[in-house]
Amino acid sequence: MNQAQTLLVIGLGLIGGSIAMAAQRQGGYARIWGHDPQTKTVQQALDRQIIDAGPTRFEEQVRQATLIVVAVPPLTVRSVLAQLRPALQPQAVLTDTTSIKGAVLQAATEVFGQFPPWMVLGHPLAGSERSGLEAAREDLFDGCRVIISPQPDTNPQALSVVRLLWQSLGAKVVELAPDEHDQLLAFSSHLPHLLAFAAVNTLLTQKRNDLFNYAGGGLVDFSRIAASNPLMWKDIALGNREALLAAMDAFAGQFDRLRKAIEEQNAEFINQAFATARTARQNLIRDFRKKI
Amino acid sequence: MNQAQTLLVIGLGLIGGSIAMAAQRQGGYARIWGHDPQTKTVQQALDRQIIDAGPTRFEEQVRQATLIVVAVPPLTVRSVLAQLRPALQPQAVLTDTTSIKGAVLQAATEVFGQFPPWMVLGHPLAGSERSGLEAAREDLFDGCRVIISPQPDTNPQALSVVRLLWQSLGAKVVELAPDEHDQLLAFSSHLPHLLAFAAVNTLLTQKRNDLFNYAGGGLVDFSRIAASNPLMWKDIALGNREALLAAMDAFAGQFDRLRKAIEEQNAEFINQAFATARTARQNLIRDFRKKI
Repeated sequence: MNQAQTLLVIGLGLIGGSIAMAAQRQGGYARIWGHDPQTKTVQQALDRQIIDAGPTRFEEQVRQATLIVVAVPPLTVRSVLAQLRPALQPQAVLTDTTSIKGAVLQAATEVFGQFPPWMVLGHPLAGSERSGLEAAREDLFDGCRVIISPQPDTNPQALSVVRLLWQSLGAKVVELAPDEHDQLLAFSSHLPHLLAFAAVNTLLTQKRNDLFNYAGGGLVDFSRIAASNPLMWKDIALGNREALLAAMDAFAGQFDRLRKAIEEQNAEFINQAFATARTARQNLIRDFRKKI
Repeated sequence: MNQAQTLLVIGLGLIGGSIAMAAQRQGGYARIWGHDPQTKTVQQALDRQIIDAGPTRFEEQVRQATLIVVAVPPLTVRSVLAQLRPALQPQAVLTDTTSIKGAVLQAATEVFGQFPPWMVLGHPLAGSERSGLEAAREDLFDGCRVIISPQPDTNPQALSVVRLLWQSLGAKVVELAPDEHDQLLAFSSHLPHLLAFAAVNTLLTQKRNDLFNYAGGGLVDFSRIAASNPLMWKDIALGNREALLAAMDAFAGQFDRLRKAIEEQNAEFINQAFATARTARQNLIRDFRKKI
């Protein structure tokens, strides 16, 4: 089925660029086209043969595309969908790659009047603190998980096309409802990013440019995600606001209890809290690695 | 000078075991002896030729040692020093490897009546979420930094011996006063560990054993230090209590401001906070890598 696809990737950043590169590597696509608000980025993608030359007009690309991947920051999806709508063919399959599903579901529903049966929400868990086409890699999705969120009215053929897309790019597909996705990712991804951003800003209050001289590998790994794209993460924080605030409050509760225990020199509580975290992390990572 | 040293490592865990292994690799030590409260661990170290056979009585080992490294959890240092004291030779050089310096300075001062001129406080920034002799590696200190804290009365020869020890094991030595060490490490190491422990415990509140199925590399790296040894980190949290509480409060301030901005949908503040963190982390890590 992929043989026939004309793939159009909108947004040639880390994710969109990597999708085009992985699709080129896989070789099963009739045409791989790309669009980006930055003309320079499109030119770079053409020069590096990440995308094939196609019609230069966006409208014409959309009209001919059979599979369209919207790989733009979360809060930009709505305007991209509105731009797509006039030229979109009835059976063109549409998917996105953003880290929040509820907001995209709502945006698509508003733009199209109802959530389109040919659209399948998707989220590859393949982010990086690096961003842009420069950071794109053809192996970014090898062994990575992609969450898709079929809706009650999703067309089975569209679902199959999106599943095959990700499998052909090397990823494993798992299903999750949009609200469950947003709730889980608030804890597993959005909260950790928030904590890393806030922790680095806390280090800055020390006004020591040499702080990393007095840090080990712990801080290096812990703070890596604080180098993530601020604009994208601003969109995520706002787009998954309620679930994220709940996750932040749950964290604040844990943090406060730990602070109190340290203040009161409650060795048993501290030891227990750390031991629980250690065991949980060891178990979680063991299962995670087993399943990859 | 190292040629003549009889090295005694007390505590054959990750750090102590790695010191003995790196010293064996380096080959410049007359004898490398080890002691551990667990007889089984000492036997394993002997079997694996990590330590050389020596007197079996601790007192006799201490009497003959010219360089003693105390590599035990922070709050255990005091009792080890008290055990050492009766047999310690006047010019035997003494050093430790713990993550807190103020508490060890105080413990040594109390045990010896004054801080011993032949003792040099040390802290290799070479921790790992793994612990125990099983995790020890002969290359653990290659390119790592070791903070030492000479005191006004420190004997220059003792200082030189400790510097040479670490350099011979592959590390780079930097100097920092104990209070400055504890203050900086509270931010660069102790706070991040606390945050990682609390974050993993927050994930647990979701009661989803499959949470890592819906997480990417971000969480994997961020949470690695949450698998650190609970007993050692309990000691660090209690032993550096005041500086850590200050760091936790500084963090809570940053976190609360970010929470408020998300609640109020203050996109500009969020974006600015994230962008500041990104730039800082990029700069810090660039300098960090340059200096290794």
